[in-house]
Amino acid sequence: MEVLRPPYKSSASAFGDTVKETFFPDDPFRQFRHQTAATKFVLAMRYMFPVLDWGAKYKFADLRADLVSGLTIASLSIPQGIAYAKLANLPPIYGLYSTFLPPLLYAIMGSSRDLAIGPSAILSLVLGTILRQEADPVKEPELHLRLALTATFFTGVIQAGLGVFRLGFLIDFLSHATIVGFVSGVAVIICLQQLKGILGLTHFTTKSDIISVLHAVFEHPQQWNWRTIVIGVCFVTLCLVTKYIGTRNRKYFWLSAGAPMTTVVVTTFCTYITHAEKHGVSIVGHLKKGLNPISTHKLFLTGPYVLASVKIAVVVAAIGLMEAIAIGRTFASMKGYDLDGNKEMIAFGVMNTCSACMSCYATTGAVSRSAVNFNAGCRTAFSNIVMSFVIMVTLLVLMPLFHYTPNVTLAAIIFAAVIGLIDPCTAYQIFKVDKIDFLACIAGFLGVIFISIQMGLVIAVTISLARLILQMTRPHTSLLGQIPGTNVFRNKKQYPGTMKTDGILVIRIDAGIYFSNANYIRERVFRWIADEEDANGKSGQSSIRYVIIDLTPVMNIDTSGIHGFENIQRILKSRGVQLAFANPGSGVFEKLHKSKFMESLGQQWVFLTVSEAVQVCSSLLAMENKGLAE
Amino acid sequence: MEVLRPPYKSSASAFGDTVKETFFPDDPFRQFRHQTAATKFVLAMRYMFPVLDWGAKYKFADLRADLVSGLTIASLSIPQGIAYAKLANLPPIYGLYSTFLPPLLYAIMGSSRDLAIGPSAILSLVLGTILRQEADPVKEPELHLRLALTATFFTGVIQAGLGVFRLGFLIDFLSHATIVGFVSGVAVIICLQQLKGILGLTHFTTKSDIISVLHAVFEHPQQWNWRTIVIGVCFVTLCLVTKYIGTRNRKYFWLSAGAPMTTVVVTTFCTYITHAEKHGVSIVGHLKKGLNPISTHKLFLTGPYVLASVKIAVVVAAIGLMEAIAIGRTFASMKGYDLDGNKEMIAFGVMNTCSACMSCYATTGAVSRSAVNFNAGCRTAFSNIVMSFVIMVTLLVLMPLFHYTPNVTLAAIIFAAVIGLIDPCTAYQIFKVDKIDFLACIAGFLGVIFISIQMGLVIAVTISLARLILQMTRPHTSLLGQIPGTNVFRNKKQYPGTMKTDGILVIRIDAGIYFSNANYIRERVFRWIADEEDANGKSGQSSIRYVIIDLTPVMNIDTSGIHGFENIQRILKSRGVQLAFANPGSGVFEKLHKSKFMESLGQQWVFLTVSEAVQVCSSLLAMENKGLAE
Repeated sequence: MEVLRPPYKSSASAFGDTVKETFFPDDPFRQFRHQTAATKFVLAMRYMFPVLDWGAKYKFADLRADLVSGLTIASLSIPQGIAYAKLANLPPIYGLYSTFLPPLLYAIMGSSRDLAIGPSAILSLVLGTILRQEADPVKEPELHLRLALTATFFTGVIQAGLGVFRLGFLIDFLSHATIVGFVSGVAVIICLQQLKGILGLTHFTTKSDIISVLHAVFEHPQQWNWRTIVIGVCFVTLCLVTKYIGTRNRKYFWLSAGAPMTTVVVTTFCTYITHAEKHGVSIVGHLKKGLNPISTHKLFLTGPYVLASVKIAVVVAAIGLMEAIAIGRTFASMKGYDLDGNKEMIAFGVMNTCSACMSCYATTGAVSRSAVNFNAGCRTAFSNIVMSFVIMVTLLVLMPLFHYTPNVTLAAIIFAAVIGLIDPCTAYQIFKVDKIDFLACIAGFLGVIFISIQMGLVIAVTISLARLILQMTRPHTSLLGQIPGTNVFRNKKQYPGTMKTDGILVIRIDAGIYFSNANYIRERVFRWIADEEDANGKSGQSSIRYVIIDLTPVMNIDTSGIHGFENIQRILKSRGVQLAFANPGSGVFEKLHKSKFMESLGQQWVFLTVSEAVQVCSSLLAMENKGLAE
Repeated sequence: MEVLRPPYKSSASAFGDTVKETFFPDDPFRQFRHQTAATKFVLAMRYMFPVLDWGAKYKFADLRADLVSGLTIASLSIPQGIAYAKLANLPPIYGLYSTFLPPLLYAIMGSSRDLAIGPSAILSLVLGTILRQEADPVKEPELHLRLALTATFFTGVIQAGLGVFRLGFLIDFLSHATIVGFVSGVAVIICLQQLKGILGLTHFTTKSDIISVLHAVFEHPQQWNWRTIVIGVCFVTLCLVTKYIGTRNRKYFWLSAGAPMTTVVVTTFCTYITHAEKHGVSIVGHLKKGLNPISTHKLFLTGPYVLASVKIAVVVAAIGLMEAIAIGRTFASMKGYDLDGNKEMIAFGVMNTCSACMSCYATTGAVSRSAVNFNAGCRTAFSNIVMSFVIMVTLLVLMPLFHYTPNVTLAAIIFAAVIGLIDPCTAYQIFKVDKIDFLACIAGFLGVIFISIQMGLVIAVTISLARLILQMTRPHTSLLGQIPGTNVFRNKKQYPGTMKTDGILVIRIDAGIYFSNANYIRERVFRWIADEEDANGKSGQSSIRYVIIDLTPVMNIDTSGIHGFENIQRILKSRGVQLAFANPGSGVFEKLHKSKFMESLGQQWVFLTVSEAVQVCSSLLAMENKGLAE
């Protein structure tokens, strides 16, 4: 059978297809096709506000499940909210503000059923660390706060922009391995910083790298406070043990979820009774009652701080999306639904932009709380609304109760929540499967802990990208042989039992042929030929007369690649070797035609399958040999 | 037949293989294998100094051919050498110095038989333009000259370094399309600058972009000198007409080769007779007799100018290699031999480093003279030695004769030599074959003429690289159908006659699966399924029960890719759809095993060929349907 040229496609329609594949690969408009205008409007509203979708189908059974999971994550969120705000060097109350409003907004616009929205340890640390380079949180607390809110505002703008312009795929460049390394590195840093609270140190470094932190820890051992150490170690142990029980047996998930809140209640009460704050145990202090105040007047929308905030926002936006989408997709695939990345980005963007105007700092779907939410059996985003309601009550009524909460408790809670993010098992798994991925992972990890958070990320992404480009520069090629008794041709290295046909060489190129690899492919083809001739020379077989290139995996070629083929053909011809192609794809076949290479090769040397090509070539060879023999 | 796992390969040997494929794809040590130490030494000397190779086999017939071609290019080189030095803002004599020594060095070390070595118009302009940003050639001529020599020295060091460290593939990132656009752009700039000489202007811009140059040309039309215009237009016409005749009919190649020299002789004589230099016709002026003086004392090897020189050298080295290797490879493939890129880089590197110590500026294999050399029938690099000898005689004896050569003649010679490098036909051919390549080409062209030479290069390379990464981010996927009467499965879009099997979907992924495309592939697979279910729904067929993914073209996968597959499998399973793979390559199969994905999928769902997979799935489907019917 003949190789077909695909049906004619104009440049404009080809361009349109490329744009569609690049920006709309998930075909979000599928559901709008063949609908009336009214239905389209309803569908669009449902698409933008998934609450209309799940809200309409909401059942009583769902309500019970969501109430339980909502209360569970609420009891986690209160202490974590207060604690994480301190990671971002913000007043503790902002952690609670950020746990109240964003979950409500996400429940309306987000499509994940499992994410628990609020401040996340990683995001808080990243924001806090980068912000510190712009404003000192101790000397200029007001500027620091305003910058944090402004950065959150732009984080939202960037996230929504990525979603609207369908650029969500940029987040994909943070590979799984990069994320594992980066998150583990940040977790190590967070844990180390908690040593300040647990040891009760008053002076501490503002740098985030491991050397400075360890130096600060061991600089003044006489400052270590045994009271805080005892409290800290006890409660870290308590949290870890309950967590361990909770993950071992899902029935006891409430144990792990309740432990932090219990810790807070107990330690606050004890501190209040014993007045431990007078013995060097630092406490949270005054917390203002009331809901989020409006903060639009605190945003910098002009002036020199805008650029600084945007720079911070780029990193925060990327890490926030990465965290939420990675964890959201995992749970979605467990429940058998799919998350639309771009849609989620719009939801997170709107959420952060709006909440920055209401005294919230950057929030996302936090990894550990989302896992608790999932394990507690949440059904819809309603669990976020439940949590938000609890936080509202807390803000309005219970705030003064946290006055005496010791900082060491918060440090212990952070420590216990974050230590699980250090993930040597996954890193080992990556090491076993893919060494270059592991390199990116470990480089990200070491970069974060020894240099800085941004550099760690940049190094890991650079390694991942360099690998992609190297793969494009040195694509795989293989020699094919026939599996005996079939007309199937396979890689000789993988299938050692394959046969070769005398005088014919079958080579498969396993990548698109571009300027970056055209030369390599030329050299590699001649090396395969030379290797084969060497082997033939020893075994006394005849030399190569036909070279068949299997183009099945070659999905595209550029003008440099065509030049490479012309070069190969010219040299082969001068050696009396005939070139043939098997199974060119539509794009490649079209370009070979347009570039006139096909005319110089001859249409008869293009075959549908490798086995057809081999049959034709070997019968030609047999005829030649017969002619020579006569 | 079963899919085989490839024979075990340790990580170290896999790493070794990667290094070998990356840096030694052409296997340069092949010839040294199984040889005695003495033979190895002889072979190594021959490899380093190809003159030992071709010199030993030299015949009388070769000598005649090389004499003719050597004399031909010599007659071109003298006027071009003087003229190109002026493009680089250097004293004209340096053009001749650079035409004397480098060809001798290349004849010893280079392996191309066709390149004519010497100053090139493009390289001279690039060097001159970038140098001007460091030192003014009019106000600080000595500093300018020293910087030029230093930059040449480092150009050689960089070129040799690229060759020694086997990094020659970096040059491949300058794609064919980029080169066409860049060279055309530089040629336009060179031609425009010659308007200064042809119009006889005394004041001219030092900028290289088209707007400044055209502004300078039309700023003072009263300065235009009719004498130089007449001479210029006449000789440009003469050169172009003879060149046209020469390319039309290879018998008359001497016409085009001789025209520039004739022009120089005639105009020099006429100027001498008429004393036209007193009527505003500027002349070359005094030229010192004698061979290249030693210039080691002029090189900056310490101090602040080193860094500046290295920066210039990076660009000059890349462009020099690009020009020489592109043209060298073209001629090599025409004569059926192959050029070793890394070996050539070492030759060019040694040539430039040594000649910078002997008052030569950056040289390379010049495009136009190499073409003349090839057309004149050169056989070996001996033609370069002949040329060099002629230049030596010129330097020793004939220098004073060029005193009266008018500058307009040189401008006309450059104009005629360079205008042929503007190549709209190739650009149109690129446009027809590959639109993105054309984009890189035209962006390079416009960048060079409107912004600057470096920016043009950067823009074109960026576009080419972005295309590669986009291709990795959005790889091609296709739906396969069975060609009736065979067990061959092909892309349905390319082969509209293919049949589909009820309830089974066959998808082929045409690229390695990495973090950059794992999400896209997941979305795309589900889109193929949704599209098919839609079509089935209309035609009343049953829904998809089996999804077979053809992994033939998938040569590699990373941990993100495996995660993507796990995701796909989980969602398909929850929908009651079975996933199957066909023909995984060794690398992918190995990684799927190591990551435990294979255990969750089940080894029985991996098939050697698509047709086997379809057979098994359809017989299972038939059994199920029968069960349901009963």
